[in-house]
Amino acid sequence: MTESQATPPAFRESRDWIETIAFDEHGLVPAIAQDATTGRVLMFAWMNREAVEKTAELGEAVYYSRSRQKLWHKGEQSGHTQRVRELRLDCDGDVLLLSIEQHGGIACHTGRESCFYRRLEGGRWQATDEVKKSPGAIYGNG
Amino acid sequence: MTESQATPPAFRESRDWIETIAFDEHGLVPAIAQDATTGRVLMFAWMNREAVEKTAELGEAVYYSRSRQKLWHKGEQSGHTQRVRELRLDCDGDVLLLSIEQHGGIACHTGRESCFYRRLEGGRWQATDEVKKSPGAIYGNG
Repeated sequence: MTESQATPPAFRESRDWIETIAFDEHGLVPAIAQDATTGRVLMFAWMNREAVEKTAELGEAVYYSRSRQKLWHKGEQSGHTQRVRELRLDCDGDVLLLSIEQHGGIACHTGRESCFYRRLEGGRWQATDEVKKSPGAIYGNG
Repeated sequence: MTESQATPPAFRESRDWIETIAFDEHGLVPAIAQDATTGRVLMFAWMNREAVEKTAELGEAVYYSRSRQKLWHKGEQSGHTQRVRELRLDCDGDVLLLSIEQHGGIACHTGRESCFYRRLEGGRWQATDEVKKSPGAIYGNG
């Protein structure tokens, strides 16, 4: 893989753009990951400044895990990395939207394509997505 | 407008589904609004329990404004209401995804289709969307 493939040129030239991001009182910004091809919203997570920098450096989504209180290179365990094709910022500068290529076609830790696999139907949350790979098979403890 | 148009049947039958939502320590849940037709992510906001209930009752997006600390029926001033076609919940139960019809084709208070109108290009945030209607014209103070 060449340098230019590893880090999209759009992210490289300067870091001034990070200053525009309005991190919250915990130093975090919400990040929405959307499939670049299908437009499906795959997941929602948080980033701190370092996660944004790492995402830009790697060209792959790096989040901040609030539960584990550390950086989380998405796919580091599962292999389901997310190549970032495009980064967008909202009007208030406090939400990021990532257009991504989802490696393996699975974003959710349950083994589904999207974390948003439950739809409200008749007053109940109904799972609409199949499990493409069991969590045990993904994380090697099944 | 008939009753069935005003309140989608899917939302009516019970309120047990609200108990499944994991509101955060402030009683809020992030909500992502996505255009039902184009798949474009239009905005990101927050809901409290009452906002979720109102959204279900009206069949239109009602958020909770953290800055104004009150319910915010999207479009109440601008007319840019959001008819909710589908409601989804993520794997952890703590993020909502709304599939909506955006009245007027404008979700952003800047008069653009989407709040995510800035794309990172060459180390800068570049506006990619035109202003479809000036905020002055929208809010009647221009």
